[in-house]
Amino acid sequence: MTGNEGQTQAGRDTSAAELEAVLDGVRRSHAVIASMPRAARAGLLTDIADRIDAHAHELRDLAHAETNLSHERLEGEIARTTGQLRMFAEVIQQGDYLEVILDSRAGPDLRRMLVPLGPVLVFAGGNFPFAFSVAGGDAAAAIAAGCGVIVKAHPGHPRTSDRTGELVKESYRVAGVPDEAFGLIHGLAAGATALRDPAVCAASFTGSTSGGRALFDIANARPTPIPFYGELGGVNPVVVTPNAVHERADEIVGGFVGSFTLGVGQFCTNPGLLFLPLGHGLEEALQAAVSQVSTAKMLDSNIAARYQRRLADIVATPGVTRLDHAAHVVDESIPPSLFKVSVGDYLSAGHALSDECFGPAAIVVEYEDPTDLLVSLGEIEGCLTATIQGTSQDLGNLSELLALMSSRAGRVLWNSWPTGVAVSPAMHHGGPYPATTSALHTAVGATSIRRFLKPIAFQGIPQELLPAELRDEHPEGLRRQVNGTVTA
Amino acid sequence: MTGNEGQTQAGRDTSAAELEAVLDGVRRSHAVIASMPRAARAGLLTDIADRIDAHAHELRDLAHAETNLSHERLEGEIARTTGQLRMFAEVIQQGDYLEVILDSRAGPDLRRMLVPLGPVLVFAGGNFPFAFSVAGGDAAAAIAAGCGVIVKAHPGHPRTSDRTGELVKESYRVAGVPDEAFGLIHGLAAGATALRDPAVCAASFTGSTSGGRALFDIANARPTPIPFYGELGGVNPVVVTPNAVHERADEIVGGFVGSFTLGVGQFCTNPGLLFLPLGHGLEEALQAAVSQVSTAKMLDSNIAARYQRRLADIVATPGVTRLDHAAHVVDESIPPSLFKVSVGDYLSAGHALSDECFGPAAIVVEYEDPTDLLVSLGEIEGCLTATIQGTSQDLGNLSELLALMSSRAGRVLWNSWPTGVAVSPAMHHGGPYPATTSALHTAVGATSIRRFLKPIAFQGIPQELLPAELRDEHPEGLRRQVNGTVTA
Repeated sequence: MTGNEGQTQAGRDTSAAELEAVLDGVRRSHAVIASMPRAARAGLLTDIADRIDAHAHELRDLAHAETNLSHERLEGEIARTTGQLRMFAEVIQQGDYLEVILDSRAGPDLRRMLVPLGPVLVFAGGNFPFAFSVAGGDAAAAIAAGCGVIVKAHPGHPRTSDRTGELVKESYRVAGVPDEAFGLIHGLAAGATALRDPAVCAASFTGSTSGGRALFDIANARPTPIPFYGELGGVNPVVVTPNAVHERADEIVGGFVGSFTLGVGQFCTNPGLLFLPLGHGLEEALQAAVSQVSTAKMLDSNIAARYQRRLADIVATPGVTRLDHAAHVVDESIPPSLFKVSVGDYLSAGHALSDECFGPAAIVVEYEDPTDLLVSLGEIEGCLTATIQGTSQDLGNLSELLALMSSRAGRVLWNSWPTGVAVSPAMHHGGPYPATTSALHTAVGATSIRRFLKPIAFQGIPQELLPAELRDEHPEGLRRQVNGTVTA
Repeated sequence: MTGNEGQTQAGRDTSAAELEAVLDGVRRSHAVIASMPRAARAGLLTDIADRIDAHAHELRDLAHAETNLSHERLEGEIARTTGQLRMFAEVIQQGDYLEVILDSRAGPDLRRMLVPLGPVLVFAGGNFPFAFSVAGGDAAAAIAAGCGVIVKAHPGHPRTSDRTGELVKESYRVAGVPDEAFGLIHGLAAGATALRDPAVCAASFTGSTSGGRALFDIANARPTPIPFYGELGGVNPVVVTPNAVHERADEIVGGFVGSFTLGVGQFCTNPGLLFLPLGHGLEEALQAAVSQVSTAKMLDSNIAARYQRRLADIVATPGVTRLDHAAHVVDESIPPSLFKVSVGDYLSAGHALSDECFGPAAIVVEYEDPTDLLVSLGEIEGCLTATIQGTSQDLGNLSELLALMSSRAGRVLWNSWPTGVAVSPAMHHGGPYPATTSALHTAVGATSIRRFLKPIAFQGIPQELLPAELRDEHPEGLRRQVNGTVTA
């Protein structure tokens, strides 16, 4: 090697001049993505997926070196990522997402559809180096919508990000689209500057409540505010009924411990609170299950240090006792922690216990009176999920609990576990603040494309000037609402 | 009359104690609205409409005394308002707005729909004492969605607001719904306090850019931020091609003058800029048309005073000349004003000419080079509408202009005029900031209900605990997407 002129050191912070070049590239070329026929944009998404799949081992190895995540976990995540890209290819070919409505009954000939919002800035997440990163769900949804994209890479996996970005750009070039319609930047300063740029029309974020809120505030303080879709924190409570303890104790213990320790507890749907009826008698089983979880490193040492500080706060809270054996951290491998507290002490503790703990820790809250349970849940901040473990005997008594959970969480589960978020058209991955900054939209699944689209109405516009989807002779199979009737 | 104990003086600012009672009422009872069957909520909306229609003359007279708006104008607005309420009754009975998606192909049984967001605070507009006020589009959409509502009345028509509020509350009582699920408050301080209340989950606003931005900032600075749907300002440009001048000069002159002076120019879609090709020769015709417009009072003297100050700014801008006869204001009746400027002077003037002027004034901008036209339009702030007046000969040359207009405005019109916003499922009344604070949603028409709904997903929830719309045995005729297929 004779030098690295012209090469960029992986993960090096993007300079002001480099950022301006990236922004300028997106400004110049995002209209190309917006005006691509849907079939061509679907082809682009599929090509990105194919290219990532073809480099899956290389990407897995890069990410493993940067994040401590296992090969198996990363391979699963890569498959999820390319599946997501292909799902959006299908969504845009099918066309329902355009919400086409034609109506002339009120007088004028009005034709309405959704169009791309404009360039989107994606702040990648740290815990998913693929699925919530450079070619992850937010970027895929934005490309599918027809938007230019700038990804602010997460500092936890810069080389993985750069390599993924190269593959995406290859796909753009193969599709005949300027690859500057897709930009990749590094560093908090570059991200914050990009967020203030007038060309940027929306931003998305996956990460902590404090970091997300700071960026949300920047987005809203702009002279021209833009939507900011942050997926932040949440404690994801699980409630177990006495009947469920009686009927399925082993299943609940195994399922819960598996869920809160999965991926070293580094999932946003990680269940942090387990409400058990007083006298449940599951202490020993829980202790045993926790002691059998294999330990692993967290994503990086900063995250591990923050986790240890959060644990210390929990331990210091009055009324909290340990249910695990307090195993030591060996070679940075983190053993899971499980605590126990009465519902009274839980309520007295406030945020010390009800705030999210990012890592493999959970708290068992013992309740006696169902009213205490409802009060506790009512005071929890907005969550992505809330789960009931119950039996058929409970069905007549759960309407109040279910209504409360529906008001505090975006997804409510029955006899299953919140980790493992299915990429499905029916998924909702969102919830009241701080679960997400916008309760109206999901961060996962087909409908997440709506975040990057805006309506437009054309009044009396001649056929030849209308988008293909709004013409009398429109693309075959496109579902449209015409004068009150849905036609295909 | 022996006194007015227990009565509230119309329009008197709501005290802190009164506000707390209103908020508490909505907190207590909004769940009743949320859980009403859709047919019952549709009945409530229809009853409100019937009640307003039955009191149309009384309401018209109240509003005429408070706003200077003509009987004819107010009667039309009342009909629009009750039509809007009935439209939402139909929308919710039909059920498409729930966006029901069931999917089990990715593994878990996921069932997703939209549910009410929670209590909505509506800041009423001044220029529409009915259609954008107590029982106007925002309130109707929020009730239809199943949300509690608090309306902050506009100070320009307090008695009209109070009387409308009484009628709405009567409908609630007749429907067996606590009437405290609908609150009415007066005064800026009460409005700002309510906007900060944790119970309030969204807010809407119709009014000025400065006022709307101040409230938008409050909504976003809350510990738990909420969506704020502001419909603010905009200059609504109209571009006339040389061919159109040649073919339809009279129609254009008459149409434009009619549109910008309609309702004393107090519409948010009022066209403020008319781009005419140099040498158009329409000065005299415009002057004649303007001189024939009958003068009228503006909504109130503050608005009239602000309008006169804005006019003075325009007059003082280099290069601006008058096209009207500079008639005097007599008895507060405001004559329309029409100005002329070259595209060069227009561009040099910046915001002095491109900002909205609320009132019966417009500026003719004379362009020679189509490039100047595109530059001028590109620098305009976001608008609700943009209009082209052209002919069939122009169709081959308009794609760039149309694309630009589509990026700057939420509704693009051809050979018609932007005032008179049809209440249609295909309407989009919104646009890039500052036209609206959220480009993703419309403030008028059936789809405006989406602003007050959020998704929720149920995973594996037993049939008997699911909302009716998500059960296997669901309400007849409801359109749902089930495993990728739309069924009814």
